Amino acid sequence: MHHSGLLTLLSLLSVIDGAYCGKILVFPVDGSHWINMEILIVELHSRGHELTVIRGSNCWRIKEESPYYTSLTFDIGKFDDEFFNGFIVNLLQIRREKRYFWDQDMLGLDILKIISNYHQEVCNMTAMIFDNETLMNFFQDAKYDLMLTDPSFGGGVLLAHRLGLPLVFNVRWTVHGEGHFDIAPSPLSYIPVPGAELTDKMTFLQRVKNVLIYTVTVHQQSKYFGEPYRAFCHKYFGPEVDYFSLFQDADIWLMRNDFTFEFPRPTMPNVVYMGGFQCKPSKPLPKHLDDFVQSSGEHGVIIMSLGTVFGNLLSDVAEEIAAAFAQLPQKVIWRYTGTRPANLGNNTLLVDWMPQNDLLGHPKTKVFVAHGGTNGVQEAIYHGVPIVGLPLAFDQPDNLSRMRKKGTAVIVDFAELDRTVFLEALKEVLYNPFYSENMKTLSRLHRDQPMKPLDHAIFWIEYVMRNGGAPHLRTQSFRMSWFTYHSVDVILTLLGAVLVILWLTFSLIKCLCCMLIQKKIKRE
Amino acid sequence: MHHSGLLTLLSLLSVIDGAYCGKILVFPVDGSHWINMEILIVELHSRGHELTVIRGSNCWRIKEESPYYTSLTFDIGKFDDEFFNGFIVNLLQIRREKRYFWDQDMLGLDILKIISNYHQEVCNMTAMIFDNETLMNFFQDAKYDLMLTDPSFGGGVLLAHRLGLPLVFNVRWTVHGEGHFDIAPSPLSYIPVPGAELTDKMTFLQRVKNVLIYTVTVHQQSKYFGEPYRAFCHKYFGPEVDYFSLFQDADIWLMRNDFTFEFPRPTMPNVVYMGGFQCKPSKPLPKHLDDFVQSSGEHGVIIMSLGTVFGNLLSDVAEEIAAAFAQLPQKVIWRYTGTRPANLGNNTLLVDWMPQNDLLGHPKTKVFVAHGGTNGVQEAIYHGVPIVGLPLAFDQPDNLSRMRKKGTAVIVDFAELDRTVFLEALKEVLYNPFYSENMKTLSRLHRDQPMKPLDHAIFWIEYVMRNGGAPHLRTQSFRMSWFTYHSVDVILTLLGAVLVILWLTFSLIKCLCCMLIQKKIKRE
Repeated sequence: MHHSGLLTLLSLLSVIDGAYCGKILVFPVDGSHWINMEILIVELHSRGHELTVIRGSNCWRIKEESPYYTSLTFDIGKFDDEFFNGFIVNLLQIRREKRYFWDQDMLGLDILKIISNYHQEVCNMTAMIFDNETLMNFFQDAKYDLMLTDPSFGGGVLLAHRLGLPLVFNVRWTVHGEGHFDIAPSPLSYIPVPGAELTDKMTFLQRVKNVLIYTVTVHQQSKYFGEPYRAFCHKYFGPEVDYFSLFQDADIWLMRNDFTFEFPRPTMPNVVYMGGFQCKPSKPLPKHLDDFVQSSGEHGVIIMSLGTVFGNLLSDVAEEIAAAFAQLPQKVIWRYTGTRPANLGNNTLLVDWMPQNDLLGHPKTKVFVAHGGTNGVQEAIYHGVPIVGLPLAFDQPDNLSRMRKKGTAVIVDFAELDRTVFLEALKEVLYNPFYSENMKTLSRLHRDQPMKPLDHAIFWIEYVMRNGGAPHLRTQSFRMSWFTYHSVDVILTLLGAVLVILWLTFSLIKCLCCMLIQKKIKRE
Repeated sequence: MHHSGLLTLLSLLSVIDGAYCGKILVFPVDGSHWINMEILIVELHSRGHELTVIRGSNCWRIKEESPYYTSLTFDIGKFDDEFFNGFIVNLLQIRREKRYFWDQDMLGLDILKIISNYHQEVCNMTAMIFDNETLMNFFQDAKYDLMLTDPSFGGGVLLAHRLGLPLVFNVRWTVHGEGHFDIAPSPLSYIPVPGAELTDKMTFLQRVKNVLIYTVTVHQQSKYFGEPYRAFCHKYFGPEVDYFSLFQDADIWLMRNDFTFEFPRPTMPNVVYMGGFQCKPSKPLPKHLDDFVQSSGEHGVIIMSLGTVFGNLLSDVAEEIAAAFAQLPQKVIWRYTGTRPANLGNNTLLVDWMPQNDLLGHPKTKVFVAHGGTNGVQEAIYHGVPIVGLPLAFDQPDNLSRMRKKGTAVIVDFAELDRTVFLEALKEVLYNPFYSENMKTLSRLHRDQPMKPLDHAIFWIEYVMRNGGAPHLRTQSFRMSWFTYHSVDVILTLLGAVLVILWLTFSLIKCLCCMLIQKKIKRE
């Protein structure tokens, strides 16, 4: 047994030793996406690769100076933060008041336009790079081995095509939606589209809803998000280059996902699942937190965080949540930056920030109250902590509906949240072992992999550098029109042939009959 | 770097150490399929698992006594060897005389019936097991953790269903054809069906051929191969159990394949590619062979083997091959059990058997003349030796057309083979570096994996034992009718709705027009 493990190690080391320390061009996306990209960058840097990061002039999280990379900064129009914050407040109000979906859709249209503008800004910035001959020469001379990018914005894809670089995605979303929908067959009969909040077991009406939402979002995203890239490709690459196929043609898709999180679905040879690559064992807590956690005794601790964007809840909701917490014997650590709720019990500690990973990994932690962002859900799976979910926007409802289907979460509707409902949900997850047992199983399955997700991701990045791409893992399908791909021409031809044969047979029989009748008539 | 490799080793070892030494029931297939299965069995045994092998009373290769497993032998009707050998001779003659496809098809129909009979025999043997209450109690009491089976015959699938055991396939073919077609979306526009000898880049006419062959084979295989299992399921499991979905429901599919061999195509989360798991570094040659090989000097060596079944060629073909070899400066080692050809040059050594793996791995070996069986092609890829292909039957033409597309083989048509054609092909592969360079690249890609294929396979077998299956990797699609799977009901409903709306709108407009006209008339 150990012998074979050792052989694996040796083969691994030989691969690592033989690795060319490469030059990687990174075109990341700001915000929470950067947190994930930075983990890859730090790891790649530690393995001796040289990284250059392209960033916009007004980045929020991507620092200009770093020990891990050299950065190149370009002017870019600002992402409209103010509008975005207003949007969040609006969204929470609409969700809270359970207004008609019409209101949500109008708000959705507003945000579509804002994001569309930002896609345009990214294209403008990329055009600036393309038009700067000195810079393009510099890129050519630097002889990069690879473009590593997050395709939820397309600048990296465009630049990689221009520079002829192999392309690796750090991806869950592309410009057009969930990554799988770009490249893998996705039967809508059991694959819920993002935003549908459905599972892989759907009733007839749910399947109708799924198809309708798919049709609408494909149209919207092509119109609002695809347009800037379409225009860009037409200008810089000519009319024969389809921007969508540039995305589909990436060498390796490192998916921030796996099948303990996602529903099982068709996939492709060049999709590598690295879900949970950001997770790590917990470290000991700082003294004051540890004391608080230990004071919970046998009851244990509840931790609550709704991420950075939703840290500041509507005050009436915060009051209801505080009141529910106050009725429990557990201790509560709540990351909350709004006004201190009047109902706050003395079992509840409000914090501006918490070491979420270390708390989730603490044996006293019983429940995680979360909005359902991807990172938080992945960490909950990794540490095996069941969830009370308060989904607010974006992919959160979908992420949490996956957890509910797997029996690892109870979801509280934001519109119906009051102290009773919330307390009910907390008690259910605290005292019904169903949820924690399921989450522990999921955690065990998630950790039971031949290789750690981060090592797996790095292997494939280095693989693409070693081999100058991975063309043998990319299918022919993206060089085909939908007409050809679905064999529509063949089916029509075969149907035509059958019809012609039927018609000929019929005509022949008719002819024969006529002849027979005529003969009969003549004879008579 | 090494640090991270060590971490991977430690995580591997912890998984291995924690492994439960399990009990595995194996339902193998005889012949060349057993060679592959035995490799898994030996490895599983070395890791401490206990194996029980179910075998028929007249097995050719599966021995009753083994240090690696306990066997259970059951009476089974004999596979008609005599007919089979006659079939092979017939087939070679038909291929040689390039007779119309009609002859081939008639012969194909004969072999379909023979194989169909053997499927019936396997079902009879399985029924014997099912009807033996003592035996079934023994199986139940033994508490196996897993059924490992080769699904080209279905006995293991049926028994696993009855015993409620998790199911792992060692598979390239199932009862119904190539394994992927059973479970993964397989667009016929770029996935060539077995027997079509096409690639993943097809012209319109080739795509028509592909769809036609698919339609015919699906029908044939369901009729000739599926029928015995359908009847068996109906009798033992009741009408609601569909035998096909029992196959689709396997936990893990260990595919004897990878994408250096196969064209890239959609796949599923529970498909694990272990292509080349049987390959190993070459050992030194026996003295007399080594002397012969070394005597080739700078010219190097050609090795030729057409496998066990085709060892004995038609004598006129053998003469042409011998004459071609005689004109080359290379040394030739030819595994041939027929009469010694008169044209044999003194550079050619005839052998009954050869250490094929050790010869393929020898640096002096320049070309491999092969019939294109899966194992031989995998070994050629592993060792990076280009191929002159003489495809004769079964999957050989398809295997070799894959190699030709990848620029690693020249194929000689059996009907057109004479000394000139064969010599031409040999010289092309010997002296045009294109083939050996492509094969060396393929070899490098094949070996560049995070884990050795055999270790990968064993990991997933043990995974299924540790976790009692892998339900989270199996999609919902197999619980659906094709009607639902392809959303036909939803599409028809939505089309209906659109038509109704159009009709209503039209009627309304018509009504309004009528009213307007009537008003006008009245006014006038």
